[in-house]
Amino acid sequence: MKVKKGDDVLLLLKDGSSYLIKTGEGIKMTHRGNIDLSEVVGKEYGSVGKTSTGEEYYILIPGIVDYIFKIRRKTQIVYPKDAAFIIMMLDIKEGDRVIDAGLGSGALCMAFARYVGSCGKVYAYERREDFIRLAKENLKRFGVLERVEIKHRDIKEGFDEKEVDAVMIDVNDSWNYIYHARNSLKGGGRIGIICPTVNQVEKALETLESEGFINLQVWENLFRMYKPVPKRLRPVDRMVAHTAYLVFATKVSVEEGKDEYEEDGEG
Amino acid sequence: MKVKKGDDVLLLLKDGSSYLIKTGEGIKMTHRGNIDLSEVVGKEYGSVGKTSTGEEYYILIPGIVDYIFKIRRKTQIVYPKDAAFIIMMLDIKEGDRVIDAGLGSGALCMAFARYVGSCGKVYAYERREDFIRLAKENLKRFGVLERVEIKHRDIKEGFDEKEVDAVMIDVNDSWNYIYHARNSLKGGGRIGIICPTVNQVEKALETLESEGFINLQVWENLFRMYKPVPKRLRPVDRMVAHTAYLVFATKVSVEEGKDEYEEDGEG
Amino acid sequence: MKVKKGDDVLLLLKDGSSYLIKTGEGIKMTHRGNIDLSEVVGKEYGSVGKTSTGEEYYILIPGIVDYIFKIRRKTQIVYPKDAAFIIMMLDIKEGDRVIDAGLGSGALCMAFARYVGSCGKVYAYERREDFIRLAKENLKRFGVLERVEIKHRDIKEGFDEKEVDAVMIDVNDSWNYIYHARNSLKGGGRIGIICPTVNQVEKALETLESEGFINLQVWENLFRMYKPVPKRLRPVDRMVAHTAYLVFATKVSVEEGKDEYEEDGEG
Amino acid sequence: MKVKKGDDVLLLLKDGSSYLIKTGEGIKMTHRGNIDLSEVVGKEYGSVGKTSTGEEYYILIPGIVDYIFKIRRKTQIVYPKDAAFIIMMLDIKEGDRVIDAGLGSGALCMAFARYVGSCGKVYAYERREDFIRLAKENLKRFGVLERVEIKHRDIKEGFDEKEVDAVMIDVNDSWNYIYHARNSLKGGGRIGIICPTVNQVEKALETLESEGFINLQVWENLFRMYKPVPKRLRPVDRMVAHTAYLVFATKVSVEEGKDEYEEDGEG
Repeated sequence: MKVKKGDDVLLLLKDGSSYLIKTGEGIKMTHRGNIDLSEVVGKEYGSVGKTSTGEEYYILIPGIVDYIFKIRRKTQIVYPKDAAFIIMMLDIKEGDRVIDAGLGSGALCMAFARYVGSCGKVYAYERREDFIRLAKENLKRFGVLERVEIKHRDIKEGFDEKEVDAVMIDVNDSWNYIYHARNSLKGGGRIGIICPTVNQVEKALETLESEGFINLQVWENLFRMYKPVPKRLRPVDRMVAHTAYLVFATKVSVEEGKDEYEEDGEG
Repeated sequence: MKVKKGDDVLLLLKDGSSYLIKTGEGIKMTHRGNIDLSEVVGKEYGSVGKTSTGEEYYILIPGIVDYIFKIRRKTQIVYPKDAAFIIMMLDIKEGDRVIDAGLGSGALCMAFARYVGSCGKVYAYERREDFIRLAKENLKRFGVLERVEIKHRDIKEGFDEKEVDAVMIDVNDSWNYIYHARNSLKGGGRIGIICPTVNQVEKALETLESEGFINLQVWENLFRMYKPVPKRLRPVDRMVAHTAYLVFATKVSVEEGKDEYEEDGEG
Repeated sequence: MKVKKGDDVLLLLKDGSSYLIKTGEGIKMTHRGNIDLSEVVGKEYGSVGKTSTGEEYYILIPGIVDYIFKIRRKTQIVYPKDAAFIIMMLDIKEGDRVIDAGLGSGALCMAFARYVGSCGKVYAYERREDFIRLAKENLKRFGVLERVEIKHRDIKEGFDEKEVDAVMIDVNDSWNYIYHARNSLKGGGRIGIICPTVNQVEKALETLESEGFINLQVWENLFRMYKPVPKRLRPVDRMVAHTAYLVFATKVSVEEGKDEYEEDGEG
Repeated sequence: MKVKKGDDVLLLLKDGSSYLIKTGEGIKMTHRGNIDLSEVVGKEYGSVGKTSTGEEYYILIPGIVDYIFKIRRKTQIVYPKDAAFIIMMLDIKEGDRVIDAGLGSGALCMAFARYVGSCGKVYAYERREDFIRLAKENLKRFGVLERVEIKHRDIKEGFDEKEVDAVMIDVNDSWNYIYHARNSLKGGGRIGIICPTVNQVEKALETLESEGFINLQVWENLFRMYKPVPKRLRPVDRMVAHTAYLVFATKVSVEEGKDEYEEDGEG
């Protein structure tokens, strides 16, 4: 497959640094020399180019992980490891209608928009106009903007949609919107909440319980990378210790929803 | 949304035990009494029913996580936590063509088939006929069988497909098929390998290197669940300690692919 | 070294089950036959005996880890992994004077008593008489009872000792005794607190701050065991997910002790 | 307790930086001003001093953790978290005789020397003279040099001692010395091995098995620190991902030592 003009391309230098660029747009300056972005056009994906100083670089296809780490952002991003688990726990699939509050820089929204497919929809709420501008740019570049309906709105008055498949809440005071999430979810619909601190988890759990959600689950995950050296295989020296606690629950009819369930620790 | 006849439904008892059943198919016997599967039809999702002994149960929508844990299996399944990360690292998306070797009980294949969407394709290789029968049943139940082309074949002679977006290898001697994976991948395409032991990781890394793959990454993840009790919040007592090491790499033109890259430990 | 009459000995069967017994005391019945405890006397440590059914067992020297897991207990024990880190963080050494509140079954007290040495002292407070009886028995068996002064007392009126090197608090409402701990500690002395839940950590931290302690640290640790099979090396399937959060701080003169310090994440 | 001339003291600035100094030795220059080391003498431990620029600092008692992180070193040090667990797993106690090979910068040796007490002995082997000089200095400063017999020797010809309680091996090719360790250990004695890579673990396990050791255990531990902020409690952002795998085993009579034992995953 050949690079076309206007493609997003990931350029990877031999030292591991990489650049997400659009081809045909002038010069990309790197610490290893300049790359003429018009020369990349017409090359094969997976092939090698050379910078102005003779350094080799690979021409690669950017994936969602690259977009998440490379997009412009003004907020804490949701890491791919968390985004992946959220997609699975909320059971996001083709055709789903999903509420994403708040939008922030749009990293998690990119994942939602990808996996609801061309016939699904993400309703993204965000209070701050500067975040919306940024997220729009990021979603457009990732090619999923038309799947997202962005609403410039404080969510304290609730969401417009009804019978949605899933609601994601990633704001500091999630517990204030769980009632609204409940109103928008279909029966059996799933809610997900991102909580950076244990104090937020406590409050979210209390409200989920009082709002009659069931199947409350709190997860955290630790991803550890290894140095890929077969004869001296071992983990890297340092790793991410914490991103966020992930809280999930399921909406049921409210009258009967207040019992406790046992956890089983499988993941 | 109401339950229709023939729907797959998840019935959740108050003690946390759950059952994936097809409605309208007789009686489901549980340790808390019997459930008449014809009575579930017509109920709202998220509503409550009663067993023959008066125990309440919830009528829920089964998600991919439920399918993965509930499907019939003869093999070690790939856990949702791993499947989710694989989907993201291999950048699986609508329209992708993916090779899945071997198929096993089909748990990971269900995830691939879901996320390649209705216009994508999974080519699933499996040597054992009994696994194929089982996986077919599971994929059919999950509603994605038509997206999967199952090949009853030993993979030592390679794969039929060319220019695929991703190749997943989940067999005990993955290193023997990396050469074939390379031949089938498009430039910039991604390979993923599941290795239960460190010894397998060592051999996979050696072969990936010698075959000229770049961007070698080895990950493992630990998911920890919390007891969802807001006033006494703490992790559960025991957790899964290990499922598998996940190895990823990218195909490039072979002549230049032999340099080493630095890892950065982000996840 | 030969086993003497009255020695504590660890008998280890080939299936991994083990028994902490006193030699010369009749018969130990196991699921693999009986062991005559008089026959063990005079054997070499590290040698092999046979049960009445011909099964082999090893005659081993019990270590502190064996005592911690084998002692009779009515309370949650402090795991060796936690006890070891506490000993190091509280800088327990020969000659130290340490307050241990509450004593419980005495597992952590055994570690303190061992490491303060023959010229050190542990002051162990416990409110419940049944725990004291049990702990006494355990400490006596471990051979350190004379290093421990047990006080049958509610600690809400404080501790008798002054200028102690370290105070350990392992009760449900630790924050109520931090003031007393402060009064008993020498300048620069260290406090350790065991908190099973995050809610307890929050309260302990608040009180440590308001009481002018510095160098506040909260740790948790995950220990993972591997299957010791060199050709198929991998972690075991399941592990302990949580025992307790460990909180540490240092006493300084109160007037200047209220500033915050940065953490550095080293361990 | 007052600071005496010649005491080792830990000076802790409000920004968390700290210095291990000997009092009465001129001036310590810091990024927050100078500290006159003669002025510290006579102050109370736990009290506050001021630098030349008016910054406050605490006068603290250095603990073993401070020594381990602050000593001069030319080698990878053994972290306190690992040292603590090793002490407990090898059951180090007053009066023990322990072989420590190789000595390196002496961090782990400090822990051994502390816990064998004044009547115990550590036999420390080291091939490199520069390491010995450094370790001697560190052990002297920590006050335990007289408990350590340092041997400037390559260990390939074995150890001089017999019937020791424990042998610790921290060299790159541990498997070459397991035979010698066996010869020096008493029956039921314990061996510990530090392995940075999985490849080293594999080889160590193979040799331990063939040398008839039993009770083979491989552990790794992850210690995670929390930000000590009670209202926003959460782990720090990054943590140590790996220090070393810790391997333990027990010496028994060789004829019967070759069976496998089950692991149980407790820690």
